[in-house]
Amino acid sequence: MTTARGSTRDAIVTAALELFREHGFEGTTMRAVAERAGVSVGNAYYYFSSKDELVQGFYDQLVAEHRAAALPELAGRSDLAERLRLTLNAWITVAEPYRAFAGRFFAVAAQPGNPLSPFSPQSGPARDAAVDLYRDVLEGARVDVDAELGRELPELLWLQHLGVVLFWVHDTSADAARTRLLVDRTVPIVARLVRLSRLPVLRPLGRQVVDVVRLLRGT
Amino acid sequence: MTTARGSTRDAIVTAALELFREHGFEGTTMRAVAERAGVSVGNAYYYFSSKDELVQGFYDQLVAEHRAAALPELAGRSDLAERLRLTLNAWITVAEPYRAFAGRFFAVAAQPGNPLSPFSPQSGPARDAAVDLYRDVLEGARVDVDAELGRELPELLWLQHLGVVLFWVHDTSADAARTRLLVDRTVPIVARLVRLSRLPVLRPLGRQVVDVVRLLRGT
Repeated sequence: MTTARGSTRDAIVTAALELFREHGFEGTTMRAVAERAGVSVGNAYYYFSSKDELVQGFYDQLVAEHRAAALPELAGRSDLAERLRLTLNAWITVAEPYRAFAGRFFAVAAQPGNPLSPFSPQSGPARDAAVDLYRDVLEGARVDVDAELGRELPELLWLQHLGVVLFWVHDTSADAARTRLLVDRTVPIVARLVRLSRLPVLRPLGRQVVDVVRLLRGT
Repeated sequence: MTTARGSTRDAIVTAALELFREHGFEGTTMRAVAERAGVSVGNAYYYFSSKDELVQGFYDQLVAEHRAAALPELAGRSDLAERLRLTLNAWITVAEPYRAFAGRFFAVAAQPGNPLSPFSPQSGPARDAAVDLYRDVLEGARVDVDAELGRELPELLWLQHLGVVLFWVHDTSADAARTRLLVDRTVPIVARLVRLSRLPVLRPLGRQVVDVVRLLRGT
């Protein structure tokens, strides 16, 4: 039963993504999504009360695909930079089919207060799942960090991920080669800063960075 | 003659900003702008061939106002953190009247490839003027940095500025109090990293950061 419900849900999200890619977010209706998925409009609305919720379904699916692609690559690797690089590149690969659509969609999601913003309450589940993946990235790494900074670090790594996504949305290079270059260049900086965060001269920075993350989160 | 032309130009930008605030960017026409400025539509088009160019005029005006507000405050101060804090807060004050409008406008400017993006060729003059201000912020500060990092640092500080603007666009707190808090919290981190960048253990970071800035700039 759960499986059947799950697969109808997935079929609707898949249909929506196809249509978003073909006609853009604004140009796609719930009716067209239902038709493409082979379900009644009423059934589509049973799962998703709006197009916004469909996008949340897409976010959830994307983060699950990202996790499934990244975890096997991380197995047996303990270098933080390597783990970060593999994880970010796994996302670029998984998200590639949506890159052209993401450019146009970005204007919707980037609007302040929009439920599709990565910081909105509605995006909470997808955001938590993404932060959890970075928690796993960190936990499997051979690196010592201060306890307080360590608690915020998964979220900080997710913010780095968002920065990469922001660049990627604007990246028109083949196979997102420029975004992969950005990953290659930023990951060693982040990994080095994490490693150095226990140095007495840098320790106060950790505390200050924690305060910034809390402000960004609104707590 | 230059003054008269300058003042007509300013009057058109001022009228456009009033209308953008009242009716949003999409809801404002060149005809309405010309009427509000008390010039003919043909005259308005003589100065600005499109609404996009009007926004570029606004960017130019905002950066000039920012510079005029910041420089007197910087006089006689040599602490980098203090200079950065005053400069960012001067921008928050100057930009306050446009905050509500900026939220809606952001969706336009944030679109990949849009001429109103801060990274577009069209925004080049306003961007250069903003980077120049951060060059002045840095040059008046009592701080030693590596020559290569020093060349990119004004642009890096401008990227920090953009990060603050991104937060500000989403900030609904009275008098942008939360953005000022973000400034208070990020400025010591940036100033400390700049100061520490000459330490042997951090020196490789400077080189890596330079490479990231070059990638962001597209060179």
